[in-house]
Amino acid sequence: MKIAVMGTGTVGRALAGRFAELGHDVTVGTRDVASTLAREPEQGESYTAWARANPAVGLASFADAAAGSELNVNAASGQAAIEVLGAAGEGNLAGKVLIDVSNPLDFSGGLPPTLSVKDTDSLGERIQRAFPEALVVKTLNTMNASLMADPRRLAGGDHSVFVSGDDPDAKRTVADLLEQMGHTDVVDLGDITTARGAEMVLPLWLRLFGAFGTAEFNFKVVR
Amino acid sequence: MKIAVMGTGTVGRALAGRFAELGHDVTVGTRDVASTLAREPEQGESYTAWARANPAVGLASFADAAAGSELNVNAASGQAAIEVLGAAGEGNLAGKVLIDVSNPLDFSGGLPPTLSVKDTDSLGERIQRAFPEALVVKTLNTMNASLMADPRRLAGGDHSVFVSGDDPDAKRTVADLLEQMGHTDVVDLGDITTARGAEMVLPLWLRLFGAFGTAEFNFKVVR
Repeated sequence: MKIAVMGTGTVGRALAGRFAELGHDVTVGTRDVASTLAREPEQGESYTAWARANPAVGLASFADAAAGSELNVNAASGQAAIEVLGAAGEGNLAGKVLIDVSNPLDFSGGLPPTLSVKDTDSLGERIQRAFPEALVVKTLNTMNASLMADPRRLAGGDHSVFVSGDDPDAKRTVADLLEQMGHTDVVDLGDITTARGAEMVLPLWLRLFGAFGTAEFNFKVVR
Repeated sequence: MKIAVMGTGTVGRALAGRFAELGHDVTVGTRDVASTLAREPEQGESYTAWARANPAVGLASFADAAAGSELNVNAASGQAAIEVLGAAGEGNLAGKVLIDVSNPLDFSGGLPPTLSVKDTDSLGERIQRAFPEALVVKTLNTMNASLMADPRRLAGGDHSVFVSGDDPDAKRTVADLLEQMGHTDVVDLGDITTARGAEMVLPLWLRLFGAFGTAEFNFKVVR
């Protein structure tokens, strides 16, 4: 499948690399290709170094990446999501599955972050309203990037991932992709309004991260 | 241990019955003993019928129950919690562990309910502020009443329960009690502000309840 992953950060790299490993044709979307390739971060790996280790993954502007894709992924931050997807272009998102993995974290009040939207709305719904012809599926936002990409790192994958969205076929496509990645328990919460539930887990996730001192954990829905 | 359970509803009965089964000296607190005993609900078991099946559990006013207790439990609804605990009496709560299992659910906008307090505050914190000398521990609010009381009903108890509170000894007392009840994974989230995380799980819990059509499920933190 031709997949465009919007975002060059930890989440975008983890997902893009994993999709490529699974044989998909992957392009990472960014605001400005030249500056992404030139950027030398103070800590962590530069995009260029990462790309050298992941030669099958392409890099293009948000719009060019989305224009050639069959499925798009928002791996930008929650704060940037709507603007990034706008740059990808409404027409380039129309009629395609759009996976949203972001969280509406608001760091303006310090740590831990609060949620900028919650309870009576969600970022998933905001994205769906902003791009009504995209087939938005909220998923993967309840775990860290390395577990999103390869859930078998932890307990052989014996934990859960949620999907929320209005289009059953889109959710089926996403569930198939998640299972390819190693997710063993894909829980369909319902329509896109159920993203409120998945996003509101973040405050608990953040406290668990604080208590454990590691992000290598996930929720399993025992039933 | 002498335990007072405030609330005669499903949660109060489940906990009171279980504590008595474990050998504790349990009194259920209610607003008005005579009207609780006289009430014939349109559906479900009357308190009187339940009490007949649980003869070891006493019934008293909120204040009388709390006056004689070593540990108090708020099993009233989130909306009623502060008022019920006020009726129990600040002095009767002072210096004792106060387990709060309630959720700040607001049904005024229809189903699913929203949360009347969240993200920058929690019901657990409100109770702690209202009764500063009580040793508040938020716990058990992330599962249904039958699993609160007897977690071994599901997967032999292989799922998680959270505790939040400012007093380490109080949390230790509560963790011991939870383990007596069959909880196998008591996760200490931190101080009482971490109740925000545990309470904000409810929107996801409610969507899972909708998706599964049963409340017999719980979260396990895989790590």
